[in-house]
Amino acid sequence: MEINGVEIQDTFAEAFGIQVSRLLVTAATKKLAKIAATEATGYGTSVIGCPAEAGIDCYVPPQETPDGRPGYIIMICNMDKKKLDHELLERVGMCILTAATTAVFDAMKNPDEKMTTGKKLKFYGDGYEKMIEIDGRTIHSIPLMAGDFLVEEELGVRSGVAGGNLFIMADTPASGLLAAEAVVNAIESVPGTITPFPGGIVASGSKVGSNKYKFLGASTNEKMCVTLKDDVEGCQIPTNVDGVYEIVIDGVDEDAVKAAMKAGIEAAVKVPGVLKMSAGNFGGNLGAYKLNLHDLF
Amino acid sequence: MEINGVEIQDTFAEAFGIQVSRLLVTAATKKLAKIAATEATGYGTSVIGCPAEAGIDCYVPPQETPDGRPGYIIMICNMDKKKLDHELLERVGMCILTAATTAVFDAMKNPDEKMTTGKKLKFYGDGYEKMIEIDGRTIHSIPLMAGDFLVEEELGVRSGVAGGNLFIMADTPASGLLAAEAVVNAIESVPGTITPFPGGIVASGSKVGSNKYKFLGASTNEKMCVTLKDDVEGCQIPTNVDGVYEIVIDGVDEDAVKAAMKAGIEAAVKVPGVLKMSAGNFGGNLGAYKLNLHDLF
Amino acid sequence: MEINGVEIQDTFAEAFGIQVSRLLVTAATKKLAKIAATEATGYGTSVIGCPAEAGIDCYVPPQETPDGRPGYIIMICNMDKKKLDHELLERVGMCILTAATTAVFDAMKNPDEKMTTGKKLKFYGDGYEKMIEIDGRTIHSIPLMAGDFLVEEELGVRSGVAGGNLFIMADTPASGLLAAEAVVNAIESVPGTITPFPGGIVASGSKVGSNKYKFLGASTNEKMCVTLKDDVEGCQIPTNVDGVYEIVIDGVDEDAVKAAMKAGIEAAVKVPGVLKMSAGNFGGNLGAYKLNLHDLF
Amino acid sequence: MEINGVEIQDTFAEAFGIQVSRLLVTAATKKLAKIAATEATGYGTSVIGCPAEAGIDCYVPPQETPDGRPGYIIMICNMDKKKLDHELLERVGMCILTAATTAVFDAMKNPDEKMTTGKKLKFYGDGYEKMIEIDGRTIHSIPLMAGDFLVEEELGVRSGVAGGNLFIMADTPASGLLAAEAVVNAIESVPGTITPFPGGIVASGSKVGSNKYKFLGASTNEKMCVTLKDDVEGCQIPTNVDGVYEIVIDGVDEDAVKAAMKAGIEAAVKVPGVLKMSAGNFGGNLGAYKLNLHDLF
Repeated sequence: MEINGVEIQDTFAEAFGIQVSRLLVTAATKKLAKIAATEATGYGTSVIGCPAEAGIDCYVPPQETPDGRPGYIIMICNMDKKKLDHELLERVGMCILTAATTAVFDAMKNPDEKMTTGKKLKFYGDGYEKMIEIDGRTIHSIPLMAGDFLVEEELGVRSGVAGGNLFIMADTPASGLLAAEAVVNAIESVPGTITPFPGGIVASGSKVGSNKYKFLGASTNEKMCVTLKDDVEGCQIPTNVDGVYEIVIDGVDEDAVKAAMKAGIEAAVKVPGVLKMSAGNFGGNLGAYKLNLHDLF
Repeated sequence: MEINGVEIQDTFAEAFGIQVSRLLVTAATKKLAKIAATEATGYGTSVIGCPAEAGIDCYVPPQETPDGRPGYIIMICNMDKKKLDHELLERVGMCILTAATTAVFDAMKNPDEKMTTGKKLKFYGDGYEKMIEIDGRTIHSIPLMAGDFLVEEELGVRSGVAGGNLFIMADTPASGLLAAEAVVNAIESVPGTITPFPGGIVASGSKVGSNKYKFLGASTNEKMCVTLKDDVEGCQIPTNVDGVYEIVIDGVDEDAVKAAMKAGIEAAVKVPGVLKMSAGNFGGNLGAYKLNLHDLF
Repeated sequence: MEINGVEIQDTFAEAFGIQVSRLLVTAATKKLAKIAATEATGYGTSVIGCPAEAGIDCYVPPQETPDGRPGYIIMICNMDKKKLDHELLERVGMCILTAATTAVFDAMKNPDEKMTTGKKLKFYGDGYEKMIEIDGRTIHSIPLMAGDFLVEEELGVRSGVAGGNLFIMADTPASGLLAAEAVVNAIESVPGTITPFPGGIVASGSKVGSNKYKFLGASTNEKMCVTLKDDVEGCQIPTNVDGVYEIVIDGVDEDAVKAAMKAGIEAAVKVPGVLKMSAGNFGGNLGAYKLNLHDLF
Repeated sequence: MEINGVEIQDTFAEAFGIQVSRLLVTAATKKLAKIAATEATGYGTSVIGCPAEAGIDCYVPPQETPDGRPGYIIMICNMDKKKLDHELLERVGMCILTAATTAVFDAMKNPDEKMTTGKKLKFYGDGYEKMIEIDGRTIHSIPLMAGDFLVEEELGVRSGVAGGNLFIMADTPASGLLAAEAVVNAIESVPGTITPFPGGIVASGSKVGSNKYKFLGASTNEKMCVTLKDDVEGCQIPTNVDGVYEIVIDGVDEDAVKAAMKAGIEAAVKVPGVLKMSAGNFGGNLGAYKLNLHDLF
């Protein structure tokens, strides 16, 4: 299969179930909302080593938010509900509550259940907190030094999908990187998805375990390393490819992740030098979701 | 004491010892280095609830870095050396190694000891890693999908100072916020310091424990809340003040934190509406450092 | 009239007819499109002294552009059609054609007429230019050093409205400035409008002519200067107001400008410290449009 | 000559004399100063079609500015002194005076002469302006709606150098673009220089006149167009090069431009895929300066 002259490999991205929360962070200005959203979603590339997978989903203009102020929707994810509950409490409490002029609203449609983040954070008010209603939502108003922080009582959580992914294969590293940025730009406009790695882009591809160091749970996927093309047997990089980047996608459900993968492929094939689009899987035995690239179109 | 017509309260910031690391993140472009530095220092406002205190210290132009590429120096801090070792491993491994085109170099002068972050991360190369030398430093080159990640074998750590702080008291919330941004801008140019809260600014002031909820370790400092001025006995906010923001500073040593506090005060008093500068302490019994505001000048 | 406790003065913004163009600048990435859009709309606050009034209208995701790449819609305006034709040629030719990976498409709905910007620019190709079709549009492809620049043959122009405006009156300068930023954020989401001043915000208010210097066509409106409140007779600033900022809006038609003014007022009244919203006019004898604030609601 | 394995062609950049001004724009925050500096230097890539060549030279921290606030130094250039005088008046008057919280100071060392920009702008104060002294400088304080704008009475101008340049030749367009960004990052740290094109990068290379259209003063340099490699006789692009970008540099003097070119080459050769560095000239008969690449090292 080819799109715009670029080969789309007949393979699938192997994705996993994950617990996903989705919240709206508003502030007095777009810039202030971005600062809080960025702090709250940092150190959140992969649950392999980070306490959560997190990222900014999209911007919401003031005309469309419950409090009429500009905001960013962020997603925070963890395999484990209890850990997700903890992460919500700390990331909202330490990174958004502490930020200037912010408020937090639930933004998850069709949640499986609710985390009581706001209900727990209100105690920080030491008795001076108040319960109010905004747009039909139960909100706790907590007095802080600089003003009142608003947080919705409950934040919705649902079983989503992590590890949706695309491999971009290009003629040079720079072509791959430029295409990766274009892919991230395209996925930004797909609601209910994030690309949790730095700038949305993954420079490293891993394999499960290690051939040489038995104590390791994961190590570099040597068959996909551009600088090892001539040194490794069974290299999976085409001869004419010297730039490989991965995009990892988490979403509120399978459809969202698939829409993001589709948008990503359509963006990548428009960048000169992109030669092939592929995806990563582990043979299909680990993850619950097999997202076939050809089925996206 | 007055500077530029603004009262500088005769008080002190009570600061604490913390273990500090300081590393340089370089990349092909300034923008790519910033992306990695931001991801690695997110979720890092306060060790009360975050796994580390972290932030960007300063930009280093390509002319002054070991590999001749643009970079940002970041600081990652924790009270506990073992936890700091863990945070370095994960924040570098998950947030910088995974980012496009990056490298990591030690940037700590006069370290007390070294963490072997690079020495541990190299195993990710699964035998394909190489040891090289750059600028007299021992560097591990780890092949990744998109190219080779370079990381210095050891990263210096030293006993630094956390919790240096300033309270900005202004006529309105917006004046306080504008001054807070000006303070952060000024501290950016003081080497060896970070302002770890979102955008460098703290909207919430805490007290130890809680009057009403005995299970809480910390709660809002109701005597410093602008919206509780009329409701709380013993309110410590001057009558004409309605905007209060705090800046928290971590540094490699006491001198760096003091230089940052001085630069911060000098910036704040230039913003119209700033009426008083103060600092936060807990009576002087908790922290090892008492940084008196008047002694800064 | 009051909204959210803020007085909306019973007055009108006096606006003027202007010739407006609206074009879409796409590029390989969002960042590259922003760079070109910013360069092309600089030095474009007011035709009083700038060769055009110009600004960014909105971002368009790759899913919605003719070439499937991310883009920004910009507006370039001048009272005079011939001058606008010149500005289009130079701003597109010098600031977008020269920028990396860009293309330019018409984005004006219901134009009165067309400027042949693309038809003129194609000659730069010195015979190597080609005419192609994208999405039913006639496009010229001009070979450059770094690749081919695409530009639509004709760019639509119509009689729009300049000088729509709001005056924000707040308790302090910082409150006014924060509100101004919030207003600009809100207007960003109103299609067909720009706020051409730096960051969308005007710090200076002018009157026609000068009392003291007869050679001047415009001078500071001393009755609206916060630092002259006690020195000028007939000062029009309320006693409790010390922060005044203006937002100037240009739009493709009267409805767009009115929608922007409405969105701006709704955003401003949510910022603490905003006491009154007003607008600027010259008695109603100069501009063709009288946009009454009360009529917006 | 080779640096880091990249061929440095034995050629020279042909540069021209230009009148250069250099001013410092300060504001309450770094962000506000950047907004004004960006607006004032827009529409300023080349005097061929723009009313000036303009750009941001560098950031100056509050500790080093006359008014203790953060600022950006910008440069505004024109071949003609009278036109430069006009541009200074309009760009400062329309794009900086109108911006929130700004001030303007002279930042030109060793000027040949002075433009009386501040002396002319003061009349806008309509008699309410005041002359003050800051740091030994004569400053006019002009009351505006939002506060007082400060501008130095005279701004220094000197004979500088325009059109210093580098050609980056890389394996692919994306490699060339990434290297171009790295070059711009490096030149940012060379004081007294700007890269006036969008993002500092030029995608188009021109030749004087046109072969086909006699009415044109300049047209695409078809021998340097990557997409015409197979179609044009005498193509000057090496066979293995498919990415060509140019960096144009203006500076306060020849030494500054040479330092920028040197820094640019050193940055470019570190980007994978860069194959050759060259420069543009017109045979040496047009410009007064011949900046030989080999002489830089």
